[in-house]
Amino acid sequence: MTESTLLIERFDHVIHVTLNRPETRNAMSLFMVNELRNLFASLQDDVTTRAVVIRGSNGHFCAGADVRDLAEGRARAAQAGSDPTQSLVDLNRAFGHLITQANHLPQVLITVLEGAVLGGGFGLACVSDVGITLQSTQFGLPETGLGIIPAQIAPFVVQRIGLTQARRLALLGERFNGDEAVRLGIAHFAASDSNALQKTLNDVLAKVKRCAPNANRITKALMHNVGGKDLNQLLDDAAQSFAKAVLSEEGTEGTLAFVQKRLPHWAQ
Amino acid sequence: MTESTLLIERFDHVIHVTLNRPETRNAMSLFMVNELRNLFASLQDDVTTRAVVIRGSNGHFCAGADVRDLAEGRARAAQAGSDPTQSLVDLNRAFGHLITQANHLPQVLITVLEGAVLGGGFGLACVSDVGITLQSTQFGLPETGLGIIPAQIAPFVVQRIGLTQARRLALLGERFNGDEAVRLGIAHFAASDSNALQKTLNDVLAKVKRCAPNANRITKALMHNVGGKDLNQLLDDAAQSFAKAVLSEEGTEGTLAFVQKRLPHWAQ
Amino acid sequence: MTESTLLIERFDHVIHVTLNRPETRNAMSLFMVNELRNLFASLQDDVTTRAVVIRGSNGHFCAGADVRDLAEGRARAAQAGSDPTQSLVDLNRAFGHLITQANHLPQVLITVLEGAVLGGGFGLACVSDVGITLQSTQFGLPETGLGIIPAQIAPFVVQRIGLTQARRLALLGERFNGDEAVRLGIAHFAASDSNALQKTLNDVLAKVKRCAPNANRITKALMHNVGGKDLNQLLDDAAQSFAKAVLSEEGTEGTLAFVQKRLPHWAQ
Repeated sequence: MTESTLLIERFDHVIHVTLNRPETRNAMSLFMVNELRNLFASLQDDVTTRAVVIRGSNGHFCAGADVRDLAEGRARAAQAGSDPTQSLVDLNRAFGHLITQANHLPQVLITVLEGAVLGGGFGLACVSDVGITLQSTQFGLPETGLGIIPAQIAPFVVQRIGLTQARRLALLGERFNGDEAVRLGIAHFAASDSNALQKTLNDVLAKVKRCAPNANRITKALMHNVGGKDLNQLLDDAAQSFAKAVLSEEGTEGTLAFVQKRLPHWAQ
Repeated sequence: MTESTLLIERFDHVIHVTLNRPETRNAMSLFMVNELRNLFASLQDDVTTRAVVIRGSNGHFCAGADVRDLAEGRARAAQAGSDPTQSLVDLNRAFGHLITQANHLPQVLITVLEGAVLGGGFGLACVSDVGITLQSTQFGLPETGLGIIPAQIAPFVVQRIGLTQARRLALLGERFNGDEAVRLGIAHFAASDSNALQKTLNDVLAKVKRCAPNANRITKALMHNVGGKDLNQLLDDAAQSFAKAVLSEEGTEGTLAFVQKRLPHWAQ
Repeated sequence: MTESTLLIERFDHVIHVTLNRPETRNAMSLFMVNELRNLFASLQDDVTTRAVVIRGSNGHFCAGADVRDLAEGRARAAQAGSDPTQSLVDLNRAFGHLITQANHLPQVLITVLEGAVLGGGFGLACVSDVGITLQSTQFGLPETGLGIIPAQIAPFVVQRIGLTQARRLALLGERFNGDEAVRLGIAHFAASDSNALQKTLNDVLAKVKRCAPNANRITKALMHNVGGKDLNQLLDDAAQSFAKAVLSEEGTEGTLAFVQKRLPHWAQ
């Protein structure tokens, strides 16, 4: 049995996930991808969890795919006279499924970005609701420098920061720090050191706690639908969701708490 | 007869609208929504008006929906044993119609953003061609903190600032000031005080005056069509509009004025 | 025979194009548009060229269409009793074809932005993979001030910087400098003087050299497909492209060079 590549802890309504392959700067193996996919699948209907925090072990978030794995896999296949194409397709596509799942996770997804945030790690950062980075963190899309392509990542980078910056980053193989990542919109907050990073994370989690869990889920799904659905239809559906939210237990409690100048129960 | 919730003044080619429910920080009642919709409908074919400026009375732009109204409406319906769902749907959807109209207003829409710019007020700011804010203005999407959702607003926030920032703002219930609003692209200019704000507004109106009224209308409609129409078809149609514009009275006057190094008549 | 409006030089894997109509600040004549279209068509299958650099002669990038041409063409047609509509449509649409070609050029397209970057010149800047500007450069969409419209340019401006800023720039006829162009995302790097500009260009070209030529082409095409193709289909296709890239000569060399801690051959 293979050892898990994830450390998972729960405090109150928050799940903390640590990518734990420190010897490869937490590079994405197929095994790790599958463990994350199973975790995210289990969270799909988990209404008690309100936020998921992902970070990496040993001062790095995630260095992307393991280049050594790619080179060795290709060499082994050549020696065995087999065609490695399908296994490469499957490995790559599995990561795309993971990142799509992460993008639509019903909970608030927070990434804590330290050290290397490269390739697939960069892609994962691009689908988080909130990205918190150190100023010293190193971001980049190194693929084209290796003769390969940011295949499953490209769409999510374009969605995150627009075609203008995405094409530059990829075609120049740019490396940049956390301040630049915030300027580009990849991350939202840059901290000068670990203490400031932890304080920012605590602040973000406190803000999540102030927001009603179900209202947050519906809002996130609604925002993901923008652009993929006719605007008038989307607004019609949204009006139904609005009425339902106002009349729900959450909406009743939240508006009453506002009028009574007190915190709603989910914020206590 | 209910008193109007709007103050409307016209100077030259500009209509100035003041949202005027100061006791609620100009919160959007259904009555105010309908008054604005009637105003915008009347401007649809008004070719003499070149800009519409919206601001709020008493130092606030607009605090969004009136939460007290929502809570009281729900309580009244519960007491009467009636179902308030449809009236909530209608209230919410009416605001969506308003914001859609505002987005496509043929004139240049300018918002002057002071005090509270929350919820629906935030949404209205997001469809203005030019947003002018005080640095001290408070922006935010408070809905999820109240157990409800930014239903009609979400699509316009995503269009304005992208999914990356929109999801963060909504899921954390973020509050932020005018400088941050400019950084995010919600507003375009931040002023330090009322005098600077007024000066910026005057500068913007002077720039509008320099641009040909009909050319501005066509350009605004053209930009709204980007993404919703096949690019080649859009460029074919745009070439026809270009030729028509060059041969129009405006195009003749504008290009002649340029060659003759004088102001065109619409700028005088 | 008309003299060419372009100066074209090749150094190694880079083609340097200079727009050369200095008497009009390199305004886009139909002849220049056609020369550029022919050049870009010839580059479509040119796998030895890895970057194309476009700049303008005599300290200006490109002032857009030649307004004097428009006015004179209209006057001539009026005198001759002929209808200039179709020739205006053709002139305008030809520029749209050029900018579409430039947007999808397989090579990395770099614009060096000095002096006037107006109208059509602004549009061309908006489809470059990398824009390098002087801080003093003057950007703007002057069309509406001339009674005409940014017809072929509008879609590319919206794609570059979003509807929010695009509508403001066009409807106010804004002029702004290189620092603001970088803040808006029109250009990527602002240099204080010619030396710094040249140094930035050299740095960018060195980065292009580090990236595998074919991987760059595939990545650029992939990014252009985002939004225009179903996401799952795009990710399926991308996984196939990924496997092909890993097994290609470039992918083999690039990953081996990484493991062996040396530069791949394309970077030498």
